[in-house]
Amino acid sequence: MRLSKTFIKTLREAPKDEVAKNGALLTRAGYIHKEMAGVYDYLPLGLRVIENIKKIIREELNSIGCEEISMTALQNPEPWEKTGRFSDQEVDIWFKTELASGGELGLAPTHEEPITEMLKSYVSSYKDLPLYVYQFQTKFRNELRAKSGILRGREFLMKDLYSFHATEEDLDRFYAEVEEAYRRIFDRLGIGDCTHETFASGGIFSKYSHEFQTVLPVGEDTIYHNADYSIVLNKEVFNDEVLTDLGAKDEKFEETAGAEVGNIFKLKYKYSEPLGLKFIDEDNTQKIVYMGCYGIGVSRLMGVIAEKFADNKGLVWPESVAPFKYYLVGIGDEGVKKCEEFYSGREDTVLFDDRDKRPGEKFADSELIGLPTRIVISDKTLADGVAEITDRKTGEQRMMSIAELFEKF
Amino acid sequence: MRLSKTFIKTLREAPKDEVAKNGALLTRAGYIHKEMAGVYDYLPLGLRVIENIKKIIREELNSIGCEEISMTALQNPEPWEKTGRFSDQEVDIWFKTELASGGELGLAPTHEEPITEMLKSYVSSYKDLPLYVYQFQTKFRNELRAKSGILRGREFLMKDLYSFHATEEDLDRFYAEVEEAYRRIFDRLGIGDCTHETFASGGIFSKYSHEFQTVLPVGEDTIYHNADYSIVLNKEVFNDEVLTDLGAKDEKFEETAGAEVGNIFKLKYKYSEPLGLKFIDEDNTQKIVYMGCYGIGVSRLMGVIAEKFADNKGLVWPESVAPFKYYLVGIGDEGVKKCEEFYSGREDTVLFDDRDKRPGEKFADSELIGLPTRIVISDKTLADGVAEITDRKTGEQRMMSIAELFEKF
Repeated sequence: MRLSKTFIKTLREAPKDEVAKNGALLTRAGYIHKEMAGVYDYLPLGLRVIENIKKIIREELNSIGCEEISMTALQNPEPWEKTGRFSDQEVDIWFKTELASGGELGLAPTHEEPITEMLKSYVSSYKDLPLYVYQFQTKFRNELRAKSGILRGREFLMKDLYSFHATEEDLDRFYAEVEEAYRRIFDRLGIGDCTHETFASGGIFSKYSHEFQTVLPVGEDTIYHNADYSIVLNKEVFNDEVLTDLGAKDEKFEETAGAEVGNIFKLKYKYSEPLGLKFIDEDNTQKIVYMGCYGIGVSRLMGVIAEKFADNKGLVWPESVAPFKYYLVGIGDEGVKKCEEFYSGREDTVLFDDRDKRPGEKFADSELIGLPTRIVISDKTLADGVAEITDRKTGEQRMMSIAELFEKF
Repeated sequence: MRLSKTFIKTLREAPKDEVAKNGALLTRAGYIHKEMAGVYDYLPLGLRVIENIKKIIREELNSIGCEEISMTALQNPEPWEKTGRFSDQEVDIWFKTELASGGELGLAPTHEEPITEMLKSYVSSYKDLPLYVYQFQTKFRNELRAKSGILRGREFLMKDLYSFHATEEDLDRFYAEVEEAYRRIFDRLGIGDCTHETFASGGIFSKYSHEFQTVLPVGEDTIYHNADYSIVLNKEVFNDEVLTDLGAKDEKFEETAGAEVGNIFKLKYKYSEPLGLKFIDEDNTQKIVYMGCYGIGVSRLMGVIAEKFADNKGLVWPESVAPFKYYLVGIGDEGVKKCEEFYSGREDTVLFDDRDKRPGEKFADSELIGLPTRIVISDKTLADGVAEITDRKTGEQRMMSIAELFEKF
């Protein structure tokens, strides 16, 4: 992409009401635009980051046999009334609206009810199970406060996966597969070593659920971890009873802040029973379907990664999610000419700063935008047959021969 | 994809309340699921069709320099109040909702206002123009009636492109480029020869806008065309004055029904003036930005294509939008074994009917699902070293050697 051709500009200052670092930096660097608190547009660079995150999640979920669909935001109250969750007392973050032809609708804050209801058309026998169905969908949550940038959205992008099983053992088996897939996802996103599977409360049908918490000072959750993070608990279950249960009574725990980037939950009969999702088993008796649900906050992840790795100069993207790999700057007529030559055919991996601006400004923007590698070709480096390569994360600089550059990058 | 592994099933009957052919067929074939009138989920096959349509549109728009973004559904009333369009009297299809922290919001039925407002952060000089920005976005329209399947959605997917220019001439130039791009898009979607650029009413600032109407008996628009479709008019502008204006007073026109799959509109100052989107021109004076907007109904297109080509056996997809190219059926142990061999490495283009069902059922489903080509390998054909190839559109059958099959497909 050519910076001269994109409408986005880096901004000197973030909007005054943007108090979160992720929101401020992503706005200044031209990734997002704030419509209102907790409601953000994705600009060209931001959309590429979102798509990169989705691609990694999609690949890992497809590899364990999950199928992608897309459900709607508008929600018929009926299935939600059967589980008691259409009530504003029960779920206090609904956005609700009215059909012109009469009747109240909700905007989906999650999709357990509609997918359970839908699968009644497709599941009748044990032969139809197990099933794993997911989507990337915009969720709506009417948060009273939303001051954490894209870490807490009123409108945000989520990956939600639902699994359907004939037996509890099969749910347990798949749950463990998702745990592994999630670890691979967070590893590939570059936050594997700071993201920890965390015990959280389980609800009626399960003792615990699990969250994936990324250690982050501005994270909204409080978590407790032992020395090597092999046992991590959300504050809500950090008590003597649970510690005894986990055999961790004698461990030392420290408190830290975490951002919940994923959660996995054995729902069992929670939704399938009130909604009547049943099947005929091998023994010819009718049984209720076991369910699990598994979320990942896609837009929140963009904020977490932005906030986690940023330094005082700007964003620092891991290669797997960066909107482009290379930030290209030419200085002098010959330098620019060589850059054009390099850019040609690499439009999808190179962000070419071909704007009519001073090198200093371009360097500052390259640091704000935070692509992994900056390539500078100037008349001077060209005279030596080299380009200057700068690693955004370490700041390390080295010279690379032009021949090697064209071959390797 | 293996049919045995997907949760979708073809259904004998469509829901009773599904009166539209596109809705009934796409539901029976497992492409969509109805949440309520005008609100549909996309199942795995349907999502693939949607993504294929998006890919074609994206490629053609990127080729004329457009940039992709993604804006929000939740709308702050402020910019809409400046243009008078937040009023339910002015725009009668709003879904509205309330923020928990106070204040009314709307769900975007279109995005002229927010994008014009947003670009005030990015446009200040003639050097920033022209700009072409688009998105694929879910739109919400509170239609009183929605009985046309996915031809008229209350929640639907639209591609909306907005262009911004320093001069009227530049708007005219780009408008013509979009006309060409739209023709290429509809050609590639397989509906080029039945989709006609149509004069429609223009509003305050322009004499006419243009629609792209696909001739379709159930289309909701009435259009008038001359013998060779070189002049086509929407009923709303089919009058003596306009015919005189177009020099078509002596032509013979016939009436037919059309489905509007796209529209293009010279907005000029309509939104930029009330919202104050201005720039400093080369002559150092402040001027108002010229705008154009260009829509394509993505989910409607899926319905139009489904409805247009379907026959009495089911769907008939053009190759460019079909969710898979080949429907693969094995008969007998050796036939199935050869199918497995063929399927391996072709998971993305082949829908493998590996279900435990009779061939007759599989053939019927292959016709309902409507992929372009069916491949049958049976023990019997295999003995002759061939596979049976059936063209879904023409019904034509031929034998192809197994070697050629592996090489060509």
